Amino acid sequence: MASKDGFSWTESQGLKAGVPCIGAIQPPTNLNDDSQHGDFDVIVVGAGYAGLTAVRDASIAGLKVLLLEARDRIGGRSWSSNIEGYPYEMGGTWVYWNQTNVWREIARYGMQDELEESYDFSKGIDQFLLSNAQRTQSFSHADEDALMKTALEKLVNVDGNLGKTAVPFPHSAKMSAAELRYDRMTLADRINELRDELTPNERLCVEAFVLLCSGATLETASLYEFLHWWALCDYTYDGLINYLVRYKFHGGQSSFAIRFFREALATGNLRYAFEQPVAAIKQLEGVRGGAVEVQTRAGRSFRGRRAICAVPLNVLDNVAFSPPLSPGKRAAASRGHVNQCVKVHAEVSGTHLRSVTAISYPHHALIYSLGDGTTPAGNAHIVAFGAQHNHFEPDEDVARAVDAFRGLAPAETDMCVRRLVFHNWSKDEYAKGAWFFPPPGLLADHLADMRAPHGHVFFACSDWALGWRSFIDGAIQEGARAVVAVTGSLAGTPSL
Amino acid sequence: MASKDGFSWTESQGLKAGVPCIGAIQPPTNLNDDSQHGDFDVIVVGAGYAGLTAVRDASIAGLKVLLLEARDRIGGRSWSSNIEGYPYEMGGTWVYWNQTNVWREIARYGMQDELEESYDFSKGIDQFLLSNAQRTQSFSHADEDALMKTALEKLVNVDGNLGKTAVPFPHSAKMSAAELRYDRMTLADRINELRDELTPNERLCVEAFVLLCSGATLETASLYEFLHWWALCDYTYDGLINYLVRYKFHGGQSSFAIRFFREALATGNLRYAFEQPVAAIKQLEGVRGGAVEVQTRAGRSFRGRRAICAVPLNVLDNVAFSPPLSPGKRAAASRGHVNQCVKVHAEVSGTHLRSVTAISYPHHALIYSLGDGTTPAGNAHIVAFGAQHNHFEPDEDVARAVDAFRGLAPAETDMCVRRLVFHNWSKDEYAKGAWFFPPPGLLADHLADMRAPHGHVFFACSDWALGWRSFIDGAIQEGARAVVAVTGSLAGTPSL
Repeated sequence: MASKDGFSWTESQGLKAGVPCIGAIQPPTNLNDDSQHGDFDVIVVGAGYAGLTAVRDASIAGLKVLLLEARDRIGGRSWSSNIEGYPYEMGGTWVYWNQTNVWREIARYGMQDELEESYDFSKGIDQFLLSNAQRTQSFSHADEDALMKTALEKLVNVDGNLGKTAVPFPHSAKMSAAELRYDRMTLADRINELRDELTPNERLCVEAFVLLCSGATLETASLYEFLHWWALCDYTYDGLINYLVRYKFHGGQSSFAIRFFREALATGNLRYAFEQPVAAIKQLEGVRGGAVEVQTRAGRSFRGRRAICAVPLNVLDNVAFSPPLSPGKRAAASRGHVNQCVKVHAEVSGTHLRSVTAISYPHHALIYSLGDGTTPAGNAHIVAFGAQHNHFEPDEDVARAVDAFRGLAPAETDMCVRRLVFHNWSKDEYAKGAWFFPPPGLLADHLADMRAPHGHVFFACSDWALGWRSFIDGAIQEGARAVVAVTGSLAGTPSL
Repeated sequence: MASKDGFSWTESQGLKAGVPCIGAIQPPTNLNDDSQHGDFDVIVVGAGYAGLTAVRDASIAGLKVLLLEARDRIGGRSWSSNIEGYPYEMGGTWVYWNQTNVWREIARYGMQDELEESYDFSKGIDQFLLSNAQRTQSFSHADEDALMKTALEKLVNVDGNLGKTAVPFPHSAKMSAAELRYDRMTLADRINELRDELTPNERLCVEAFVLLCSGATLETASLYEFLHWWALCDYTYDGLINYLVRYKFHGGQSSFAIRFFREALATGNLRYAFEQPVAAIKQLEGVRGGAVEVQTRAGRSFRGRRAICAVPLNVLDNVAFSPPLSPGKRAAASRGHVNQCVKVHAEVSGTHLRSVTAISYPHHALIYSLGDGTTPAGNAHIVAFGAQHNHFEPDEDVARAVDAFRGLAPAETDMCVRRLVFHNWSKDEYAKGAWFFPPPGLLADHLADMRAPHGHVFFACSDWALGWRSFIDGAIQEGARAVVAVTGSLAGTPSL
């Protein structure tokens, strides 16, 4: 199976659009003919983890479910491409056993022993390389940890208590006055406060790390959201590593997502259609118990008692809602989130770079890199991240991507980039960006708006999750929340 | 609503069996008459969190479910009694947002802002009192933390890496050779290894803490299981506090458990009968697709396609299985777990003891105590824990329980015990002990046995959970696992 999404590049084949993916669904629909299907209990728009979870929970609950997905695959912003049996993660990757919704599902599917570590500090160049435009310094990983820890603790120590007072309970639906204030500050504001406290190396590390997390620029990203991540990660640097970049699926994210889809399908309650972007969601007047009509861009129309809209904030405007969304929701969609992460995988000759981590900033296009695996050919697999800062389009400028990887290694290293694999999230019309990271004030002004239902339409997306907002965990939580809300809303109304 | 379980005592009323409980279910059954109900898809035996989760997930999944529970209430070993509007937790109490299954449910039910902290170090006697038979020492809570941290880190440092090498992945279904070895050691074995390294105060603290966790004696409890708890708690003392004794439900555990029951009931798929202890579970031969017959002690008999047995290990022998359980399961049930925790709540005059924590060991009946709340009357609420070490029956010896609380406070304090509330778990024929804590070798020999199905009967209990074994979290995980297994097992078999 293959998806039209994603790109791969090798010297011999050049750039190719579309990559293998076990999350690409065949056949693309199990709807035979519109007329056969009648009404659905719930129509779910979007097959990212929020939509998939909603589809699964609703199917299990005996609801007649229709899933409409714009792409040819499940997973939304989290999907993997298996190339020669080796998974490259195109978006959301890492999971951890203290991420509640993710782990609940991993345990439920008995996948608890299917994780592996991205890091392997036992091979080849076992160093942390810290480069700016002037020079490259080399450190041990122990020195890297010490430097990052000190630097990040200065950043989050807004309260003299390492952020524990500022964000005491990262799963709350409420934001305190202090939290609202931090949300109106940018990362640049906070770093500017610390300008006399951070050493030059600490400042490099902090700026690169928060750009890794936000995919934005320092001037456009909320300080609060980073404090919230820090709180979710147990207020420790070790926590950041464990939760954010350490454990991934041996079989790739799509090996996890497909479990949700298959479980839903096995109930017999799921109809689905891929490659069916939705154009409009209308609430129908005068139908007892309520009804919605969902129209695809291709002009097909489906009726349901309820709808769950599980598309990202940045593409909510792709859908025409009737009646129109609340002013708060529209304002949130219009502001959008600011993550324009550029994530690129490279297979590079030999294992010598397997154990490297690197920051190249502020001059470089790929700011943060780490060894992420060893390919079947025995080469090192490096994953690298760029942001809105120095943003570029790797599909338009492969040479720049290759160069960015070359810049990773010490000059004397003979580095040959054999393969690139990536997804251009910024040009993806169904995402318009990577994982959610808010501009200042968006959460303060609109978190509740984003979470609110709109008549018979419910909204499920990691972008407005409590807790692990922006993460796969938050997406699963939101999908479950939406189905609880739909079930409650349908109780007592006439059934089909 | 009230349960026959539990005891309360006041000077004026004396000892009374039975306490108010919102988890006591009225009416006690919704079965009108045996003959009306026919076969069930699944019969769940036991309404602790594992059974409740199984009942809920199966009901939602459209299975015809029968719940049989021996008691008059839900919750099993986790339930609360609301007395004058104030909850006392009779068993399992604390939850944390990194406990995956618990938090998934809390978020799903929108209860994320219904927690409160047990500790409040801002009132009255704000001290840690450390007593042995000879003397009482008083420390600040900061000193308590430092002492406990140093002492426990010595205990878990079996690998020179604070247990991280010994138990690298606490959610795995596999135990390494090292883990098997630690499981064959007792806590006493390990403490004996440290006899020259622990100061007298550290030794007091370590022994009291592991008895708090195990409810056993040092000689009867597995070292591995404590290392496993430590790993689950992120290998830190702060983690132990956060996960184990910090956050509880404002409305009590039964306010959480009832959500599962009500959700199941709302599906219309649940029949239930309380006060119906089960005597036997038989697999019926020759029924296509499989069938089981469940007999109650009262002589009623129900047929189901599958059964989920969600009773604790220590009472598995209460049920006669036909055909008999595997030798491994029988051996595990016969060995049992070793937790005979004695948990007693006291309301004591005035708020002066609200902020106290205390260890009284090895001479005292209640080893570990902490301020747990302020009652509506403005008095301090203290919760205290005993173990198999110096075990006693508070319902048989109220004076000893009162004395044990008196021993908490400095001699010059005027302490008046106004009320006691407790459940005697050791004498409870449906529990025969508190939360699971294994003797040496039980997990090494029988973890897989305990988790295995037996024909058409599936076993769900926190006692053999991976990850948060012994905790509410593990119970919920097990209930979900059982329903996934039952659903898989029923796929392709003839429906009712």
